[in-house]
Amino acid sequence: MVVMSLDRLIEKIIQTKNPTVAGLDPKLDFIPSFIKEAAYAKHGKSLEGAAEALLQFNIGLIDALCDIVPAVKPQAAYYEMYGWQGVRVLQQTIAYARQKGMFVITDGKRNDIGTTMEAYAIAHLGEVAVEDLSFEPFGGDALTVNGYLGSDGIKPLLDICKGKDKGIFVLVKTSNPSSGELQDKLIEGKSVYEIMGEHCKQWGEDSIGKHGYSGVGAVVGATYPAQLKELRAKLPHTFFLVPGYGAQGGGAADVAPAFDANGLGAIVNSSRAIMCAYKKEGCDEREYAAAARREAIRMRDELNAPLAKSN
Amino acid sequence: MVVMSLDRLIEKIIQTKNPTVAGLDPKLDFIPSFIKEAAYAKHGKSLEGAAEALLQFNIGLIDALCDIVPAVKPQAAYYEMYGWQGVRVLQQTIAYARQKGMFVITDGKRNDIGTTMEAYAIAHLGEVAVEDLSFEPFGGDALTVNGYLGSDGIKPLLDICKGKDKGIFVLVKTSNPSSGELQDKLIEGKSVYEIMGEHCKQWGEDSIGKHGYSGVGAVVGATYPAQLKELRAKLPHTFFLVPGYGAQGGGAADVAPAFDANGLGAIVNSSRAIMCAYKKEGCDEREYAAAARREAIRMRDELNAPLAKSN
Repeated sequence: MVVMSLDRLIEKIIQTKNPTVAGLDPKLDFIPSFIKEAAYAKHGKSLEGAAEALLQFNIGLIDALCDIVPAVKPQAAYYEMYGWQGVRVLQQTIAYARQKGMFVITDGKRNDIGTTMEAYAIAHLGEVAVEDLSFEPFGGDALTVNGYLGSDGIKPLLDICKGKDKGIFVLVKTSNPSSGELQDKLIEGKSVYEIMGEHCKQWGEDSIGKHGYSGVGAVVGATYPAQLKELRAKLPHTFFLVPGYGAQGGGAADVAPAFDANGLGAIVNSSRAIMCAYKKEGCDEREYAAAARREAIRMRDELNAPLAKSN
Repeated sequence: MVVMSLDRLIEKIIQTKNPTVAGLDPKLDFIPSFIKEAAYAKHGKSLEGAAEALLQFNIGLIDALCDIVPAVKPQAAYYEMYGWQGVRVLQQTIAYARQKGMFVITDGKRNDIGTTMEAYAIAHLGEVAVEDLSFEPFGGDALTVNGYLGSDGIKPLLDICKGKDKGIFVLVKTSNPSSGELQDKLIEGKSVYEIMGEHCKQWGEDSIGKHGYSGVGAVVGATYPAQLKELRAKLPHTFFLVPGYGAQGGGAADVAPAFDANGLGAIVNSSRAIMCAYKKEGCDEREYAAAARREAIRMRDELNAPLAKSN
């Protein structure tokens, strides 16, 4: 039986020699004025205008990153914040990034049960039937999900992804300061995040791909390097999506334990540092995409340095 | 300081003498053919056509229910399943229900941290700035959320809702069979759902409204009556959103423990039983809205029977 998988992501990482995913979280505050002004001139200061600015910003970033960064991670919240017009840009961004060969992880942290979870799976990773025709509603390659509801919230995703080269990432140990309120608590001597990690292992056991990783990945924050190390050892077939690098305080040394002996096994997210590199550099805002590329190269080299040393 | 609150919901429940929320989960399968055919004739068999069918179906239901049911709960997944066109219908449905005086609980089970959670809060309960103008992206009255990430995932909602007559419902004990995989596990003698319930209490302690309930409600499934009873006793200021009635197996006796001595404290969801009442009745599909109303009245009377007895 064909299984779901993250193989395509792993192959893009090998090809670009870059375990980075660029977060596309386009708040208006992050977008250069020249883009916003052109969008408002066309569509007014409105949700339509804002959405157009988001789209043009993203297109510029994708064009600048697509040959050196394997994946993008649009965060659904920043699109929903601009209404359905923003959500349309989520779909357009996903389509554009895929057309440019990038792997797209839709960061929605979706969760529900039964047919409702199936609807989310269809929305973000599958195809929906309208009578005898079928359509890709959003068309992402992978989706982040929250496992608080148990297997009923995950199995519908596995069913929808079966036979597709698509995967999921389940929240295990998140990067935020309060993640331990629940996730670090012990249940019969095991932390909640460890239990969630074991679930990921089990949910993915039928879908281990060519590179030894299953289609069910885990989100583990860069801000908790000890837990990254622990989970890497315990979950040898679980691919990690690692947020919290850069802005939230995680550095290259912190994320190094996420990788296996081959330098694989994880992809590290950077959102603001890449999107807003032009602000930090202090360059002309019209150069925002070039600045994003420079930051992505700097990050790639920074991530690869400890990996090269360990090999 | 003005606080967030669920007072408006509670007042609608008192006014209609009905602790029911009608779930609006409009899969195409649930929609009468005459509506779908008219929509396809206008927009083709496409996501646009499907979206138009969803909207017309919802409008019919809202018209038939708005004077006897206090609230609707559109489930975001079923709108996302039809792409951004479906998400536009989510916004249109919310606007129409509010215009008809209904309280709208957007069932999105959203979760994230910091500025990303703030973006979800703005999207679903707040207003977004586009330069000097501001817009309501979706405009719901309350949002369901998932607390797996801890306080960092909830506080941004409290900030956005502050001073607004809006609230949230946090997943505590969900109605599905596998909810216990994590939620029933014991941490130092307390179940995960109990700990999540205590968080709800604490997150809501500054926002207790006129009727003794805070702006931070909890989702507790009808399928677990013992836990409903336990949580009602332990969380006297936490309002419950109760899924799992009807289709999932919970009956009126099962949900009775969710209510306080005044018959308040909870609202019980019914989605498919109301939406698809015409199928169960076997009436002409053109009467789907009237059938939905008949089922809503039946459910109201069924829910009120044990409450009347206990008073």
